[in-house]
Amino acid sequence: MTAPSGPARVLEPLGERDCWAHLESRSIGRIAVARPGLGPLVVPVSFAVGADRTLLFRTAPGTKVDALLVDRASFQVDELDLLHGTGWSVLVEGTAEVRWADPADPRPDWAPADLPFLVELTPVRITGRELRLDLVDTDPRGYR
Amino acid sequence: MTAPSGPARVLEPLGERDCWAHLESRSIGRIAVARPGLGPLVVPVSFAVGADRTLLFRTAPGTKVDALLVDRASFQVDELDLLHGTGWSVLVEGTAEVRWADPADPRPDWAPADLPFLVELTPVRITGRELRLDLVDTDPRGYR
Repeated sequence: MTAPSGPARVLEPLGERDCWAHLESRSIGRIAVARPGLGPLVVPVSFAVGADRTLLFRTAPGTKVDALLVDRASFQVDELDLLHGTGWSVLVEGTAEVRWADPADPRPDWAPADLPFLVELTPVRITGRELRLDLVDTDPRGYR
Repeated sequence: MTAPSGPARVLEPLGERDCWAHLESRSIGRIAVARPGLGPLVVPVSFAVGADRTLLFRTAPGTKVDALLVDRASFQVDELDLLHGTGWSVLVEGTAEVRWADPADPRPDWAPADLPFLVELTPVRITGRELRLDLVDTDPRGYR
Protein backbone atom coordinates (compact mmCIF):
# COMPACT_ATOMS: atom_id res chain seq x y z
CA MET A 1 0.00 0.00 0.00
CA THR A 2 1.22 3.49 -0.76
CA ALA A 3 0.55 6.53 1.38
CA PRO A 4 -2.89 8.00 0.68
CA SER A 5 -2.61 11.21 -1.31
CA GLY A 6 -5.05 14.11 -1.48
CA PRO A 7 -6.15 16.14 1.54
CA ALA A 8 -3.69 16.49 4.41
CA ARG A 9 -4.32 14.34 7.44
CA VAL A 10 -4.70 15.97 10.84
CA LEU A 11 -4.04 14.38 14.24
CA GLU A 12 -6.29 15.89 16.90
CA PRO A 13 -6.93 15.11 20.56
CA LEU A 14 -10.37 13.75 21.43
CA GLY A 15 -12.46 15.03 24.34
CA GLU A 16 -13.56 12.62 27.07
CA ARG A 17 -17.13 12.44 25.76
CA ASP A 18 -15.91 11.40 22.32
CA CYS A 19 -13.54 8.88 23.89
CA TRP A 20 -16.46 7.20 25.68
CA ALA A 21 -18.60 7.19 22.55
CA HIS A 22 -15.77 5.44 20.71
CA LEU A 23 -15.21 2.95 23.54
CA GLU A 24 -18.89 2.06 23.58
CA SER A 25 -18.88 1.48 19.82
CA ARG A 26 -16.39 -1.39 20.04
CA SER A 27 -16.38 -4.80 21.70
CA ILE A 28 -12.69 -5.70 21.41
CA GLY A 29 -9.80 -3.81 23.00
CA ARG A 30 -6.29 -4.51 24.24
CA ILE A 31 -5.21 -4.70 27.84
CA ALA A 32 -1.62 -3.65 28.53
CA VAL A 33 0.30 -4.26 31.73
CA ALA A 34 3.90 -3.47 32.58
CA ARG A 35 6.23 -6.29 33.55
CA PRO A 36 9.60 -5.69 35.22
CA GLY A 37 12.50 -6.29 32.81
CA LEU A 38 10.23 -7.13 29.90
CA GLY A 39 8.18 -5.15 27.44
CA PRO A 40 4.55 -4.57 28.41
CA LEU A 41 2.15 -7.46 27.89
CA VAL A 42 -0.54 -6.48 25.36
CA VAL A 43 -3.43 -8.86 24.79
CA PRO A 44 -6.71 -8.41 22.90
CA VAL A 45 -9.80 -8.98 25.02
CA SER A 46 -13.53 -8.80 24.54
CA PHE A 47 -14.86 -6.16 26.90
CA ALA A 48 -18.02 -4.50 28.16
CA VAL A 49 -18.56 -1.04 29.63
CA GLY A 50 -20.01 -1.42 33.14
CA ALA A 51 -22.78 0.61 34.72
CA ASP A 52 -20.31 2.85 36.53
CA ARG A 53 -18.23 3.32 33.38
CA THR A 54 -15.67 0.78 34.37
CA LEU A 55 -14.26 -1.59 31.76
CA LEU A 56 -15.01 -5.26 32.34
CA PHE A 57 -13.46 -8.35 30.88
CA ARG A 58 -13.05 -11.98 31.82
CA THR A 59 -9.83 -13.83 32.28
CA ALA A 60 -8.37 -17.07 33.58
CA PRO A 61 -5.76 -17.47 36.31
CA GLY A 62 -2.25 -16.80 34.98
CA THR A 63 0.32 -14.19 34.05
CA LYS A 64 -2.14 -11.61 32.85
CA VAL A 65 -4.03 -11.51 36.11
CA ASP A 66 -0.90 -11.70 38.24
CA ALA A 67 0.55 -8.70 36.46
CA LEU A 68 -2.67 -6.74 36.78
CA LEU A 69 -2.77 -7.28 40.50
CA VAL A 70 0.53 -5.55 41.09
CA ASP A 71 0.45 -2.72 38.60
CA ARG A 72 -1.57 -0.13 36.84
CA ALA A 73 -3.07 -1.17 33.56
CA SER A 74 -4.00 0.51 30.30
CA PHE A 75 -6.77 -0.39 27.94
CA GLN A 76 -6.52 0.61 24.30
CA VAL A 77 -9.22 0.60 21.64
CA ASP A 78 -8.92 1.82 18.08
CA GLU A 79 -10.56 1.79 14.70
CA LEU A 80 -8.30 2.35 11.73
CA ASP A 81 -9.27 2.82 8.11
CA LEU A 82 -6.32 1.46 6.18
CA LEU A 83 -7.67 2.65 2.85
CA HIS A 84 -8.04 6.30 3.76
CA GLY A 85 -5.39 6.58 6.43
CA THR A 86 -7.88 7.80 9.03
CA GLY A 87 -9.04 6.51 12.38
CA TRP A 88 -8.99 7.00 16.09
CA SER A 89 -7.36 5.51 19.18
CA VAL A 90 -8.46 5.77 22.81
CA LEU A 91 -6.27 4.93 25.80
CA VAL A 92 -7.78 4.33 29.23
CA GLU A 93 -5.35 4.25 32.14
CA GLY A 94 -6.59 2.97 35.44
CA THR A 95 -6.43 0.59 38.32
CA ALA A 96 -7.50 -3.00 37.93
CA GLU A 97 -9.30 -5.21 40.39
CA VAL A 98 -9.70 -8.92 39.87
CA ARG A 99 -12.44 -11.00 41.47
CA TRP A 100 -14.45 -14.13 40.83
CA ALA A 101 -17.07 -13.47 38.20
CA ASP A 102 -20.69 -13.62 39.29
CA PRO A 103 -23.54 -14.69 36.97
CA ALA A 104 -25.03 -11.23 37.49
CA ASP A 105 -21.94 -9.50 36.08
CA PRO A 106 -22.17 -8.17 32.54
CA ARG A 107 -20.48 -10.65 30.25
CA PRO A 108 -18.48 -9.43 27.26
CA ASP A 109 -19.82 -10.92 24.04
CA TRP A 110 -16.93 -13.18 23.30
CA ALA A 111 -15.96 -14.27 26.79
CA PRO A 112 -16.20 -18.03 27.19
CA ALA A 113 -18.25 -18.94 30.24
CA ASP A 114 -15.37 -20.91 31.72
CA LEU A 115 -13.21 -17.84 32.39
CA PRO A 116 -13.71 -17.53 36.13
CA PHE A 117 -12.16 -14.12 36.84
CA LEU A 118 -13.67 -10.74 36.19
CA VAL A 119 -11.24 -7.85 35.74
CA GLU A 120 -12.69 -4.42 36.39
CA LEU A 121 -10.59 -1.48 35.26
CA THR A 122 -11.51 1.81 36.91
CA PRO A 123 -10.40 4.65 34.66
CA VAL A 124 -8.09 7.27 36.09
CA ARG A 125 -7.34 9.02 32.82
CA ILE A 126 -8.85 8.75 29.35
CA THR A 127 -7.15 10.21 26.33
CA GLY A 128 -7.71 9.79 22.64
CA ARG A 129 -6.78 11.13 19.30
CA GLU A 130 -8.31 11.14 15.89
CA LEU A 131 -6.54 11.08 12.58
CA ARG A 132 -8.81 12.62 9.99
CA LEU A 133 -8.66 14.12 6.55
CA ASP A 134 -8.32 17.87 6.49
CA LEU A 135 -10.96 18.68 3.90
CA VAL A 136 -10.41 22.42 4.26
CA ASP A 137 -7.29 23.41 2.40
CA THR A 138 -5.29 25.46 4.85
CA ASP A 139 -2.27 25.83 2.60
CA PRO A 140 -1.81 29.60 2.07
CA ARG A 141 -0.58 28.82 -1.42
CA GLY A 142 -3.77 26.85 -2.07
CA TYR A 143 -5.41 27.35 -5.43
CA ARG A 144 -8.71 25.55 -5.07
CA MET B 1 -23.49 -8.60 19.16
CA THR B 2 -24.10 -11.96 20.74
CA ALA B 3 -21.46 -14.64 21.17
CA PRO B 4 -20.96 -16.66 18.00
CA SER B 5 -22.50 -20.09 18.31
CA GLY B 6 -21.58 -23.27 16.44
CA PRO B 7 -18.14 -24.91 16.54
CA ALA B 8 -16.05 -24.41 19.66
CA ARG B 9 -13.28 -21.85 19.47
CA VAL B 10 -9.73 -22.86 20.27
CA LEU B 11 -6.91 -20.62 21.46
CA GLU B 12 -3.54 -21.92 20.25
CA PRO B 13 0.01 -20.60 20.43
CA LEU B 14 1.62 -19.58 17.12
CA GLY B 15 5.14 -20.61 16.10
CA GLU B 16 7.68 -17.92 15.28
CA ARG B 17 7.40 -18.47 11.52
CA ASP B 18 3.64 -17.89 11.64
CA CYS B 19 4.15 -14.85 13.85
CA TRP B 20 6.44 -13.28 11.21
CA ALA B 21 4.03 -14.13 8.39
CA HIS B 22 1.26 -12.37 10.30
CA LEU B 23 3.46 -9.37 11.09
CA GLU B 24 4.39 -9.00 7.44
CA SER B 25 0.72 -9.12 6.41
CA ARG B 26 -0.15 -5.93 8.31
CA SER B 27 0.95 -2.31 8.13
CA ILE B 28 -0.45 -0.98 11.40
CA GLY B 29 0.53 -2.13 14.87
CA ARG B 30 0.66 -0.75 18.38
CA ILE B 31 3.75 0.23 20.28
CA ALA B 32 3.57 -0.17 24.07
CA VAL B 33 6.02 1.28 26.57
CA ALA B 34 5.94 1.14 30.35
CA ARG B 35 5.84 4.39 32.30
CA PRO B 36 6.58 4.57 36.03
CA GLY B 37 3.43 5.12 38.08
CA LEU B 38 1.16 5.11 35.06
CA GLY B 39 -0.36 2.46 32.85
CA PRO B 40 1.64 1.56 29.74
CA LEU B 41 1.40 3.94 26.81
CA VAL B 42 -0.13 2.17 23.80
CA VAL B 43 -0.20 4.00 20.47
CA PRO B 44 -1.04 2.76 16.96
CA VAL B 45 1.74 3.27 14.45
CA SER B 46 2.34 2.48 10.82
CA PHE B 47 5.30 0.15 10.61
CA ALA B 48 7.59 -1.68 8.23
CA VAL B 49 9.62 -4.84 8.69
CA GLY B 50 13.30 -4.05 8.10
CA ALA B 51 15.83 -6.13 6.21
CA ASP B 52 17.19 -7.62 9.44
CA ARG B 53 13.69 -8.37 10.72
CA THR B 54 13.59 -5.36 12.94
CA LEU B 55 10.38 -3.33 13.20
CA LEU B 56 10.64 0.24 11.96
CA PHE B 57 8.40 3.21 12.53
CA ARG B 58 8.68 6.97 12.47
CA THR B 59 7.98 9.30 15.32
CA ALA B 60 8.37 12.88 16.44
CA PRO B 61 10.24 14.09 19.53
CA GLY B 62 8.08 13.69 22.65
CA THR B 63 6.85 11.34 25.34
CA LYS B 64 6.74 8.27 23.17
CA VAL B 65 10.38 8.50 22.19
CA ASP B 66 11.52 9.52 25.68
CA ALA B 67 9.84 6.48 27.15
CA LEU B 68 11.31 4.18 24.53
CA LEU B 69 14.79 5.37 25.28
CA VAL B 70 14.66 4.26 28.89
CA ASP B 71 12.70 1.04 28.69
CA ARG B 72 11.95 -2.07 26.79
CA ALA B 73 9.09 -1.86 24.37
CA SER B 74 6.49 -4.21 22.99
CA PHE B 75 4.88 -4.15 19.60
CA GLN B 76 1.48 -5.75 19.13
CA VAL B 77 -0.31 -6.60 15.90
CA ASP B 78 -3.61 -8.38 15.52
CA GLU B 79 -6.37 -9.18 13.10
CA LEU B 80 -9.75 -9.95 14.62
CA ASP B 81 -12.86 -11.18 12.87
CA LEU B 82 -15.70 -9.79 14.96
CA LEU B 83 -18.32 -11.73 13.06
CA HIS B 84 -16.86 -15.18 13.57
CA GLY B 85 -15.01 -14.64 16.83
CA THR B 86 -11.70 -15.69 15.33
CA GLY B 87 -8.35 -13.99 14.82
CA TRP B 88 -4.77 -13.79 15.89
CA SER B 89 -2.49 -11.55 17.93
CA VAL B 90 1.30 -11.31 17.84
CA LEU B 91 3.43 -9.65 20.52
CA VAL B 92 7.03 -8.66 19.82
CA GLU B 93 9.13 -7.72 22.83
CA GLY B 94 12.42 -6.03 22.24
CA THR B 95 14.79 -3.19 22.69
CA ALA B 96 14.23 0.10 20.90
CA GLU B 97 16.75 2.44 19.39
CA VAL B 98 15.86 5.90 18.21
CA ARG B 99 17.81 7.83 15.61
CA TRP B 100 17.36 10.48 12.97
CA ALA B 101 15.66 9.00 9.95
CA ASP B 102 17.64 8.81 6.74
CA PRO B 103 16.07 9.03 3.25
CA ALA B 104 17.46 5.55 2.60
CA ASP B 105 15.50 4.05 5.52
CA PRO B 106 12.38 2.10 4.67
CA ARG B 107 9.41 4.35 5.27
CA PRO B 108 6.19 2.90 6.67
CA ASP B 109 3.28 3.59 4.33
CA TRP B 110 1.45 6.06 6.49
CA ALA B 111 4.35 7.89 8.06
CA PRO B 112 4.30 11.61 7.25
CA ALA B 113 7.66 12.72 5.86
CA ASP B 114 7.99 15.31 8.63
CA LEU B 115 8.45 12.75 11.40
CA PRO B 116 12.20 13.03 11.89
CA PHE B 117 12.91 10.07 14.17
CA LEU B 118 13.18 6.45 13.19
CA VAL B 119 12.49 3.89 15.92
CA GLU B 120 13.97 0.48 15.32
CA LEU B 121 12.72 -2.29 17.56
CA THR B 122 15.02 -5.32 17.71
CA PRO B 123 12.96 -8.35 18.72
CA VAL B 124 14.05 -10.33 21.75
CA ARG B 125 10.96 -12.51 21.98
CA ILE B 126 8.04 -13.09 19.62
CA THR B 127 4.89 -14.82 20.76
CA GLY B 128 1.48 -15.14 19.25
CA ARG B 129 -1.77 -16.93 19.54
CA GLU B 130 -4.57 -17.76 17.23
CA LEU B 131 -8.23 -18.05 18.07
CA ARG B 132 -9.85 -20.32 15.53
CA LEU B 133 -12.96 -22.36 15.05
CA ASP B 134 -12.61 -25.99 16.00
CA LEU B 135 -14.17 -27.52 12.91
CA VAL B 136 -13.42 -31.04 14.08
CA ASP B 137 -15.96 -32.02 16.67
CA THR B 138 -13.92 -33.36 19.56
CA ASP B 139 -16.89 -33.78 21.86
CA PRO B 140 -16.97 -37.52 22.73
CA ARG B 141 -20.75 -37.27 22.69
CA GLY B 142 -20.57 -35.87 19.16
CA TYR B 143 -23.10 -37.21 16.67
CA ARG B 144 -21.85 -35.91 13.35
